[in-house]
Amino acid sequence: MNWSPAELQAGVRAGDRRALARAISLVEDGEPEAYELVRALYPDTGNAYAVGVTGPPGVGKSSLISALVRHVRGLDLTVGVVSVDPSSPFTQGALLGDRILLDASGKDLVFLETVGTGQSEIEVIAIADTVLLVLMPGSGDSIQALKAGIMEIPDVIAVNKMDHPAAKTMLNEVRSILSLDRAREWRPPIVLTEATRGENVPELWARIEEHRAHLEEGDRLAERRRQNLRTEVFAVASARAKGHLERAVAGDEELRRLLDEVGRRELDPLTAVQEIMQKVFRLDDGNDPDTR
Amino acid sequence: MNWSPAELQAGVRAGDRRALARAISLVEDGEPEAYELVRALYPDTGNAYAVGVTGPPGVGKSSLISALVRHVRGLDLTVGVVSVDPSSPFTQGALLGDRILLDASGKDLVFLETVGTGQSEIEVIAIADTVLLVLMPGSGDSIQALKAGIMEIPDVIAVNKMDHPAAKTMLNEVRSILSLDRAREWRPPIVLTEATRGENVPELWARIEEHRAHLEEGDRLAERRRQNLRTEVFAVASARAKGHLERAVAGDEELRRLLDEVGRRELDPLTAVQEIMQKVFRLDDGNDPDTR
Repeated sequence: MNWSPAELQAGVRAGDRRALARAISLVEDGEPEAYELVRALYPDTGNAYAVGVTGPPGVGKSSLISALVRHVRGLDLTVGVVSVDPSSPFTQGALLGDRILLDASGKDLVFLETVGTGQSEIEVIAIADTVLLVLMPGSGDSIQALKAGIMEIPDVIAVNKMDHPAAKTMLNEVRSILSLDRAREWRPPIVLTEATRGENVPELWARIEEHRAHLEEGDRLAERRRQNLRTEVFAVASARAKGHLERAVAGDEELRRLLDEVGRRELDPLTAVQEIMQKVFRLDDGNDPDTR
Repeated sequence: MNWSPAELQAGVRAGDRRALARAISLVEDGEPEAYELVRALYPDTGNAYAVGVTGPPGVGKSSLISALVRHVRGLDLTVGVVSVDPSSPFTQGALLGDRILLDASGKDLVFLETVGTGQSEIEVIAIADTVLLVLMPGSGDSIQALKAGIMEIPDVIAVNKMDHPAAKTMLNEVRSILSLDRAREWRPPIVLTEATRGENVPELWARIEEHRAHLEEGDRLAERRRQNLRTEVFAVASARAKGHLERAVAGDEELRRLLDEVGRRELDPLTAVQEIMQKVFRLDDGNDPDTR
């Protein structure tokens, strides 16, 4: 089907699956029509609650999301899932656009799933209303990262594969790490789950709902969303600047020559950066403290 | 001591500790004098071999680096260590500058150590001649990430804390993951180590030297360094663009108002990004496929 902008808009609002699929692919490909669509739909968004799901590879994030989706559908809630593909250069814009479109289609809930760690994890944490960290016995790196303060404290933690002999030990370990931080208003609950059998999934959902209720007291949710949107706008703009930079260098012989000179040690890399910033962004970089 | 630019340059070249410390802090603070210094010293660099050391927190990276430093000093090599602090906004520039200054001071070797995971890890991997990944039994997340192809294959792997009962199991697991990739020219060796007692550290160093010899055959090392420098120049330029963006928004009332409008849902975030790109970088973004 060939959608007109008005049909696509109406289709998304009505929650039509094909319209949504088309709209999301426009956003993910960074097509200009996507901008129009987001502009038109944005005023009606803000109803969907966004749960970001992070954690190391192999712990069962996808199965746990499937189990949560089944559970909340049983509660008559509508749900969308966005998977963040870290290999896509448009990650940021796509994440933002997908979330807005699912929200506009009247979904009650959106799950944002990270694939892998690093950048995509940071992005999802930055835009979620509630961050769920999934661990399993044996995911020692994450425990160390939590302990060292390198990983942000999530809002809710699931220790998945609860039948594993070391599950209880891990539960206690996570509990003792969290107990070090007494200043937090919200104490992240930890739930033992078994995603494939759906065990303790209703319990996990109840903890997520409690976190939501906590945020909805006073102005916390609105404030978090304002902060998240700010972060998101910055992140999309930075990603765009980076993309522009790469295309500019690829398409400009003088800039390519600059890089070759660095490679031959005829030009130092910091001077090369200054010249690139000047040429691509018309920015004086380096000696002006404002653009350092 | 108050160094003149010429004194500082001479001090760094002579390997004077105080001169190096002063130069490195100029670079890390992003001071304009640092640019001059890097410009002057860069032509004489390229002699130091850079070993990047990555791995999850808590596996003993620092102790292993200390043990390697003791070992190579015993071989009459001079060594510098750069620790990458991911909390610094100047990470990229500092990493580049520190490496150049240690190189200019005549060090034979530079170890680049990452703290934590994520961005700083990606940066170190991008500029090292040899990447050493340190694991220990229990660092399950990394094994999963290697398996899933999310983590880049390093050049050499150390499984530290070799006395741990699961060390051999881990060695075999890593070996079987690596064996899946038969296309690589270089098969990453795996060494069991015990950093605190210095056990197998000479063996580990020998494997790093073998990787270096492999790169020095033909044009591989020169090609890798050209590629690394390119990546580094891009990374510093992107970080600068991001910094400029943040300062521009903070200092411009109109841009701050834009973000507030997004928060109140009066303006959609993608349009906000377009307006920011236009105002800060004078870039038409969005409808022009070249700046998407």
